[in-house]
Amino acid sequence: MIIDCHGHYTTAPPQHDAWRKEQLAAFAEGRPSPAYPQISDDEIRESIEQNQLRLLRERGADMTIFSPRASVMAHHLGDERVSGEWARACNDLIARVAGLFPDTFIGVGQLPQSPGADLKASVAELERCVTELGFIGCNLNPDPSGGMWTAPPLTDRYWYPIYEKLTELDVPAMVHVSASCNPNFHATGAHYINADTTAFMQFIQGDLFSDFPDLRLVIPHGGGAVPYHWGRYRGLADMLHKPPLDGHVMQNVFFDTCVYHQPGIDLLVRVIDAGNILFGSEMVGAVRGVDPQTGHYFDDTKRYIDAADLTDAQRSAVYEGNARRVYPRLDKALRERGR
Amino acid sequence: MIIDCHGHYTTAPPQHDAWRKEQLAAFAEGRPSPAYPQISDDEIRESIEQNQLRLLRERGADMTIFSPRASVMAHHLGDERVSGEWARACNDLIARVAGLFPDTFIGVGQLPQSPGADLKASVAELERCVTELGFIGCNLNPDPSGGMWTAPPLTDRYWYPIYEKLTELDVPAMVHVSASCNPNFHATGAHYINADTTAFMQFIQGDLFSDFPDLRLVIPHGGGAVPYHWGRYRGLADMLHKPPLDGHVMQNVFFDTCVYHQPGIDLLVRVIDAGNILFGSEMVGAVRGVDPQTGHYFDDTKRYIDAADLTDAQRSAVYEGNARRVYPRLDKALRERGR
Repeated sequence: MIIDCHGHYTTAPPQHDAWRKEQLAAFAEGRPSPAYPQISDDEIRESIEQNQLRLLRERGADMTIFSPRASVMAHHLGDERVSGEWARACNDLIARVAGLFPDTFIGVGQLPQSPGADLKASVAELERCVTELGFIGCNLNPDPSGGMWTAPPLTDRYWYPIYEKLTELDVPAMVHVSASCNPNFHATGAHYINADTTAFMQFIQGDLFSDFPDLRLVIPHGGGAVPYHWGRYRGLADMLHKPPLDGHVMQNVFFDTCVYHQPGIDLLVRVIDAGNILFGSEMVGAVRGVDPQTGHYFDDTKRYIDAADLTDAQRSAVYEGNARRVYPRLDKALRERGR
Repeated sequence: MIIDCHGHYTTAPPQHDAWRKEQLAAFAEGRPSPAYPQISDDEIRESIEQNQLRLLRERGADMTIFSPRASVMAHHLGDERVSGEWARACNDLIARVAGLFPDTFIGVGQLPQSPGADLKASVAELERCVTELGFIGCNLNPDPSGGMWTAPPLTDRYWYPIYEKLTELDVPAMVHVSASCNPNFHATGAHYINADTTAFMQFIQGDLFSDFPDLRLVIPHGGGAVPYHWGRYRGLADMLHKPPLDGHVMQNVFFDTCVYHQPGIDLLVRVIDAGNILFGSEMVGAVRGVDPQTGHYFDDTKRYIDAADLTDAQRSAVYEGNARRVYPRLDKALRERGR
C-alpha cells in the first residue's frame, strides 16, 4: 500500500477559518473567544472527497497521515490560550475527518505552542491527541515566533518535555514551521525550506539522540537543502568532531519526498538511504499547479518515486514500510484492520 | 583557463584579526580605534602561497576572484563607523594580495553595511574598490543583522542605491551573509544556505530585474536549496503569476558550484542552464576536510565539474566564459594581459 506521510487539511470548511479570524479579533479586543461553529459531517465529507480523496485516488495512493493546515498554525499570533483553543479546534476537526474516512486518513496533531511559553500545554495536547483522538504523531514548530527565530535550537533542553512525551507515547514528530511574519521569508518558498535545513544542522551540532535514542523526527520537504548539500553536512560533522551522520543523526531523522521535480527526487534517493525516506506529497498544499514541462501536477510526487532508481524493496519501504516503522501506532491500526 | 569565482582570504596574517578584536573592544569602551598594524608583503605572500595558491595549483585552477573572509564581515558588530573601518582594512588587504599575485587573484570588496544604516557608505566603498583598487565586484549581505533578518527584502527600494552603483560600474554582487549571532543558525551549515534560498525566493516574489535589467547577482553555495527544489520554485512562480524563471530571474542570477559532492553537482548541471553556473570552491573555507568516501577534499569542486555531464563548451562556460561575462572588468583585465 502507499502511505502519504505529509498531508494537510488545507480545504477545511470556511466556518473553521472564519472562527479563527473571530478568535484573533476577540483576543485583540480583550473579549472571550466566540463559540466554535457547527460544521456538519456532510460539509467535512465534501471538503475531503472533492480534494484530498479525489487526488489520492487519481494518483493511486491509499492513505494519508493527515494534520491541520501548517501555514495557519501561526503560533506567533495571540497567546498560549489562543494557541490552545486553536490547536484543539484543528485537532478535533482532523479527528472527525479520520472518523469519517478511517481507511484513508489518520491524524497527526497541531501543538499549542506560543513564543516564550513552556511546552506543558503542548505535552498535554499531544497526549490528548494520541490517547483520546487516536493520532499517531504531531507537528512540532521549531520557530513558534513565525520567522523571528526567537526559540532556542531544537537540541536545547527547552524542548525535552515534548521529546519525553513523544518517546513515552512512541510517536514521531514532523518538524514543521508555520507562516512567516518576517517579510524576508516567503512561507512555502523560504521559511519552510530554511527551517528544514536549520533543524538538520542543529541535530549535527548537538547530541540530541544520545539523550533520546528512540526519538524519531521527520524533516519534511525532502530535508530542505540537506540532500543537495550532503557533502557539506558530512564535512561539517567531521569538522565539528561529530560521528558520521548515519549514526549521529540518521538513526532518528527521516526525510519526506515533497520535492517537486524528478531530478530532485533522483538526488534524494541517490544520496539518502531508502530507509530514511518516507513518501509524502504535501497535498493539497504548497504548490498546486501543473508543471508545463510534464503536464502533471508538481506535487504528484508518486510519479517521481515510480520513476526513481529504486529496487522494489526500496520503493516499498519508501511507500509503506518506513511509515509503519516510524509511526508504529499507524502500523498497529493497520494490522487491526488486517492491512 | 579556470576561474574560481568564490574565494575568501580566510588565512590573513594574524595581526589583521587581532586588530579587529582591538577595534571592537575599543568601540565597546568608547575609545577610538587603534592604528592598523604593519603587515609585510612577505607575510601576505606566505599566507597565500601556503594556502590558496598551493591548493589552486594542486587542483589545477588558474585564478580566484578573491574577497575578504565572509564569516568575519560581521556587519552586526559595532556601528556604521566600525563597519566602515573594517571594510576598508579588509579591502585594502585584498588589494595587496591582488597586487602581489596579479595573475592569480583579483579583488571583490566587502561593504560597510550596518543594521539600520542606509547604503551611502556602501556605495562609496564599492566605488573606491572598483575605481581605486581595481576590484571587479562586491559581496552584498542581505542580512547585516547576522541572523536576525531585520533588513527589508533584497527587492525593497532600500537596496536600490547599491544596485544603481553596481549597474553604473558594470560589476556584479555576490549575495553573501556573514556570521550568525542567532543560536538557531550555524553560519556555514544553515545561515549561508538559508540566505541563498531566501534571496532567490525574494527575486521570484519581486520584479527587481524589471527595474535593473543589467544587474547581475551571484547566489553562492550552488544557489542554496534552489536547484534541489527547482520544481517548487517553478511552481511558486506560476502560483504568484510571475513569468517563467528563465526570463523573470535567470537572466540576472547566477549560481556558483560550491556544492561538496558529486550528486549535488550532477543535479545542479542537470537542472540549471550551464550559462548560469560559475565555477567556485569557497576555498579555503567552510569545509576543509577530506571526504573519506572519495579521498579528496570536499571543497575540491573542480573534480565534480570535470566528472559532470557537460559538453566541452558548457564546461568551458562554467570554468571561464560565464565569469568573464558576469564580471566584465575581469574579462577586460585578462584581455589587457593577453589572456
